[in-house]
Amino acid sequence: MNYNHQELKQFVEQLFIAMGCLKSDASSVAEVLIAAELRGIPSHGLLRVKDYYAMVKAGRINTSPKVSILHETPSTATVDGDNALGPVAAKTSMQIAINKAKTAGTGWVATNNTNHFGIAGFYSMMALEHNMIGIALTNANPLVAPTYSADRLLGTNPIAVAIPTHNQPPFVVDFATTPVARGKLAIKSKLGEQIPLGLVQDKEGNPTTNPGAIEQGGAILTLGGSGVELGGHKGFCMTALVDIFSSVLSGANFGPFVPPQVAYLPLLSHSVGKGLGHFFGAMRIDAFRPAQEFKLSMDEWISTFRNAAAAQNQSRVIIPGDPERESEAIKAKQGISIIPAIFDDLNSIASELMVDPLGNKK
Amino acid sequence: MNYNHQELKQFVEQLFIAMGCLKSDASSVAEVLIAAELRGIPSHGLLRVKDYYAMVKAGRINTSPKVSILHETPSTATVDGDNALGPVAAKTSMQIAINKAKTAGTGWVATNNTNHFGIAGFYSMMALEHNMIGIALTNANPLVAPTYSADRLLGTNPIAVAIPTHNQPPFVVDFATTPVARGKLAIKSKLGEQIPLGLVQDKEGNPTTNPGAIEQGGAILTLGGSGVELGGHKGFCMTALVDIFSSVLSGANFGPFVPPQVAYLPLLSHSVGKGLGHFFGAMRIDAFRPAQEFKLSMDEWISTFRNAAAAQNQSRVIIPGDPERESEAIKAKQGISIIPAIFDDLNSIASELMVDPLGNKK
Repeated sequence: MNYNHQELKQFVEQLFIAMGCLKSDASSVAEVLIAAELRGIPSHGLLRVKDYYAMVKAGRINTSPKVSILHETPSTATVDGDNALGPVAAKTSMQIAINKAKTAGTGWVATNNTNHFGIAGFYSMMALEHNMIGIALTNANPLVAPTYSADRLLGTNPIAVAIPTHNQPPFVVDFATTPVARGKLAIKSKLGEQIPLGLVQDKEGNPTTNPGAIEQGGAILTLGGSGVELGGHKGFCMTALVDIFSSVLSGANFGPFVPPQVAYLPLLSHSVGKGLGHFFGAMRIDAFRPAQEFKLSMDEWISTFRNAAAAQNQSRVIIPGDPERESEAIKAKQGISIIPAIFDDLNSIASELMVDPLGNKK
Repeated sequence: MNYNHQELKQFVEQLFIAMGCLKSDASSVAEVLIAAELRGIPSHGLLRVKDYYAMVKAGRINTSPKVSILHETPSTATVDGDNALGPVAAKTSMQIAINKAKTAGTGWVATNNTNHFGIAGFYSMMALEHNMIGIALTNANPLVAPTYSADRLLGTNPIAVAIPTHNQPPFVVDFATTPVARGKLAIKSKLGEQIPLGLVQDKEGNPTTNPGAIEQGGAILTLGGSGVELGGHKGFCMTALVDIFSSVLSGANFGPFVPPQVAYLPLLSHSVGKGLGHFFGAMRIDAFRPAQEFKLSMDEWISTFRNAAAAQNQSRVIIPGDPERESEAIKAKQGISIIPAIFDDLNSIASELMVDPLGNKK
């Protein structure tokens, strides 16, 4: 069952309009979720419609928000997301960062009172057409233990950075700062498979090869694993920085206080800020050197790394952004496949909202 | 042999004045190197005087530089370090970033034509007294292989971020983006010890437990190790970003083209920019929210993490910056010890430069 991405986008847009969103907001949400599908990151795609809808139904997300600037300077703004769907608050915030960069050289926006925003890469890539470097960070529900702790205090807090190029495709990094995503662990767990040491610990903080430990009070480890032997404390620093920039700077909830982004988990009793938090940056490359010069130099950087000698038994260096762009090219042409469980969820939501269902394709 | 840090600073300052530096420049270099000793990072302290001196003698560093702004916008500047000693170019650059932040909210400076700058943390911490977040990045000589490659294309490229607090001590991260520093490998190698898998590969790109592999054409791995199983590709992204921000944005040499920072290695035949590169940021916290509110929230963040449950067989979560600050307090009082080989090097340089030697303390 392969669906044209534009058809899917319209369908998702209709769902969010039916949930009470303005057309432009519904369009933002649909655009971000379908971008995830195109880029081969279905964990952040159509799968999320059900979660977002449950949050809306529970009154935990505001479908008619007024996203507004709370405070600003020439190069910064703090944005109140008004408890919007994450993509709505995030797209507006990134646009503010881009506008600031036009006049101040760079723009930096910290957003509070927001929710799960899908793929961070989407917002960082908004900067590319403006000849800017784009940056997007977000905190997320706590699943990660800091080095030497048994407690889950941090999210898998991603970092996305998109950098313009000339002939080479843009350089786009978009990665959770932890060594593994929760979704992959859930799949391994269902298959009854073991995982290597260095990804997860049990609820006492002991290393484990059991991917199911995460459902039994265990935690995901920071990049570099437990302890300092392989640099786990450096991974902790990265994940912590993303949390602090997203929350302490914006006035959102940090670490363990990030509100659950699924409706089946109750709201937390204690709060230290407003909602979840994001952080965005836009840097005009010609605020540093002539844009064309920068882009040619990026091309040279990329071709140097692309042409590096491969390690034994490996094929080549992968430039960040290549796999996602290749997926995008294929899926834009061949369409997006939807697994039956998600297809059924989508059409059951469509039925509840009295939206035309997705046709059943063979 | 313990030396008072102020006495040592004056001694080092005299050495660099005798090498031809202005007093203010010599003072910057001495300040940064002694800060490394105080903070318990001797690999970036007095040990470097010999390397810097050899570079000066070889005419590969300019001791009377004019560090200047090449281009600027309200929130950015590109700085030409004029081939200065790294700490001279870096301190001036960070000061420019801080000044920009005063008016534009944030300041961002990319510096080319510079050299090894000591500990990144020093520059990030310059922001603290201004109620700003400070950021310092630098690229470095290539010792690190990107994921799936056998080539050494990246440095151990550090990231430092200093964040103001109220009652808690400031939050200061300062870490090489690789799992291990070269110095630690050299010591293990000399002791004939093995290292765990995940730190180093041999010259064909195969995993190895031999720390000496790095001297036989091998490479340091990225954070997360080789391959993607434990997230090594994410470490590659981090190290690559630090390189690109430091070099492509500034017009310095990237990755494999960073000029050797020791005089016993010849200059490279090919160059893609000017010297080595740094990147600095300063963000006024009240450009986002009232400074006091931010600092109290940082205190709450830190105490939450400090009070987390320890993992089994571990004592507690270590807040970034704690170990270095504790070292600083002790060494400021008890003095800095110098190992005999470094003591002899320093006094032999003093003798060459006709500077009063360090007294031999028992």
